[in-house]
Amino acid sequence: MATADDIRATIDKYLAAFAAGDKESYLGLFAEDATVEDPVGAPICRGREEISGFWDRMRGMAEKMELVLLGSARVVGKEAAFVFRVTTTVGDNSVALEPIDVMSFDDDAKITSMRAFWGPEDLQAV
Amino acid sequence: MATADDIRATIDKYLAAFAAGDKESYLGLFAEDATVEDPVGAPICRGREEISGFWDRMRGMAEKMELVLLGSARVVGKEAAFVFRVTTTVGDNSVALEPIDVMSFDDDAKITSMRAFWGPEDLQAV
Repeated sequence: MATADDIRATIDKYLAAFAAGDKESYLGLFAEDATVEDPVGAPICRGREEISGFWDRMRGMAEKMELVLLGSARVVGKEAAFVFRVTTTVGDNSVALEPIDVMSFDDDAKITSMRAFWGPEDLQAV
Repeated sequence: MATADDIRATIDKYLAAFAAGDKESYLGLFAEDATVEDPVGAPICRGREEISGFWDRMRGMAEKMELVLLGSARVVGKEAAFVFRVTTTVGDNSVALEPIDVMSFDDDAKITSMRAFWGPEDLQAV
């Protein structure tokens, strides 16, 4: 059974893997049949192969991403919600976004589902 | 079809109704068969009668509640997530909490489901 601390550790690793551009670590945080819906309403990526494609589209395009957890993750049972600030740099342009992510986890604190709440109107030039 | 502005208006009214202790306005924001899970993992209240009971247990006990939306609600389609700070006063004691609420809405921007992410460890004495 994953504890709240295990789940917090997964979230920390998740943000760190994105920031580092470490795709292997990122994919290793997901359960085999995990789903990613980012943003909410987008086609759902299911399983590590589709999530790998999501990474390539999302993270692969950015030269640099800085991610900071804002406040603490609210962990309840095997679910969590948290806010983070992500600053993405492509060329001379940087945009910031503060999505709210909602995740569920399995007994090993692997991510079984992720839904990211943000819209284009939440993007801020920095 | 509810627009993002309609959904934001419902969220504003929701926080205002809680702060004002206005149960009738609060219940009027929900669709007939809406569900409330607060916090996530608690028994789900279904329909206005059960949600009315939830209000009595949650809001009825507090002399005063102050609620402030933190940042903007992230609205995507007919769903939204947002963070707010609620300060609850009972007698000489005040506690603050910053839950993350996730809601879905119908075509009239009535709330069809609400899930509140927070745990006892998120409570702060103020």
